[in-house]
Amino acid sequence: MKIALATPHFPTSITDGLNKVEQLATDAAKQGAVVVCFPETFIPGYPLADVEVPKASQEELAEALNKVCEIAKANNIAIIIPMDWYEDDKFYNLAQVASANGEVLGYQTKNQLDPSEDTTWQPGTERRLFEVGELKFGITICHEGFRYPESVRWAAREGAHVVFHPYLSGSDLKGNQITEWCNPNSPYYEKAMMMRALENTIYFASVGYAMKYQESTSAIIAPDGKCLAYQAYGQEGVIVVDIDLGKATGLLGKRFKPELYR
Amino acid sequence: MKIALATPHFPTSITDGLNKVEQLATDAAKQGAVVVCFPETFIPGYPLADVEVPKASQEELAEALNKVCEIAKANNIAIIIPMDWYEDDKFYNLAQVASANGEVLGYQTKNQLDPSEDTTWQPGTERRLFEVGELKFGITICHEGFRYPESVRWAAREGAHVVFHPYLSGSDLKGNQITEWCNPNSPYYEKAMMMRALENTIYFASVGYAMKYQESTSAIIAPDGKCLAYQAYGQEGVIVVDIDLGKATGLLGKRFKPELYR
Repeated sequence: MKIALATPHFPTSITDGLNKVEQLATDAAKQGAVVVCFPETFIPGYPLADVEVPKASQEELAEALNKVCEIAKANNIAIIIPMDWYEDDKFYNLAQVASANGEVLGYQTKNQLDPSEDTTWQPGTERRLFEVGELKFGITICHEGFRYPESVRWAAREGAHVVFHPYLSGSDLKGNQITEWCNPNSPYYEKAMMMRALENTIYFASVGYAMKYQESTSAIIAPDGKCLAYQAYGQEGVIVVDIDLGKATGLLGKRFKPELYR
Repeated sequence: MKIALATPHFPTSITDGLNKVEQLATDAAKQGAVVVCFPETFIPGYPLADVEVPKASQEELAEALNKVCEIAKANNIAIIIPMDWYEDDKFYNLAQVASANGEVLGYQTKNQLDPSEDTTWQPGTERRLFEVGELKFGITICHEGFRYPESVRWAAREGAHVVFHPYLSGSDLKGNQITEWCNPNSPYYEKAMMMRALENTIYFASVGYAMKYQESTSAIIAPDGKCLAYQAYGQEGVIVVDIDLGKATGLLGKRFKPELYR
């Protein structure tokens, strides 16, 4: 079963973002992927300090989600589209999941915000598992997946074969350029991706933006911690990887004893 | 406040192990450390497939612990001594803690065994926090600390400044030699050490054996994930590091929301 990780440049607008979704989702579908994941709050774009991202209204966000559903249906591919979302007087950082039929399957909120995000979004409180055909997956968003292994453990214990991890790290304006996967001098992010897979014996699919000064890249990690493929640093594109659901046994996730930590 | 990580060669006997404890604890005390930690089941030695380690009786183990307490008292240093231990018809992989007065403060069992260890030990069921003067610490043993971040989270949320992590990885007979900290081609262990510190904003002190083919080394990681010091690969010795308890805020550990994962 093939899954895809889309690594777009930072969108200049919602329209630009949707164009990139269409382009990369079409590419992923042509390569046979059943699902493609985009990076954190790709609609309208993560509110970086060094980029002007106008806040979108809920009407614009809902309209964008409709458009993503149309793209999913037209290409017969499920799409994980991280975005801003207003609901019940809350403002969430979440990821919507559109089925290959163009239906919204639901969303996963970011529940453990980075301290720097406390004044931007409200944290969600629920976790859920998604199913696309035979594939069961969870979603953990950026900081949550990097610093809270429990968010991945939860999905592994619910039977997830993969946890998708939309994130943003880096900048287009300043920073260091990375050229080697998991280099000891790089920030910790790629090392955390390895851990999330091998702590649970499941696949971990981490999806970031293509930026000039990325602090890590998009990658799919096997249940034994091996990096199966990663996106070239700084380059927009999609990687499609054939995963073996039989290898995602969840062995170490299932051996976790929650009663020991209460 | 100074803490010490002792990296001995594999002991040839309990007596040899106790000689190494005396030598390295004395060295650590001379350098001003308040506590020194030894690697996993150092008494009588981890039951590797490629080494003949005779099983010790509970009488021998208790006698060895008494000797460690004498060494602690004589050098005015607390000692974390991982060992085999029989109690209540169970056979545990645990770490005893001797105070600088030579009293046994208690022990931490290994509660999440590696699948390969299921027929060797029985898993423990309790976690506890230890105090040596101002220093609060937890202990997580090998696999538990490498694959179960929850074991470190627990201690961080209880107020630990440091989690000590006695382990064994590698062999004296076969394998690859590592020369660079956190090299991307090395096994994942050193990368996991980084994560355990920065997931919780506490220090993480990982303590292994000096072996010809180590798969990782002993290291002390700062609350921001930076490796402060590590033992030279393959060389017996002790590293003493001055840590700043004020930096071990436990910030990200305390922001963890356990209610989200039940």
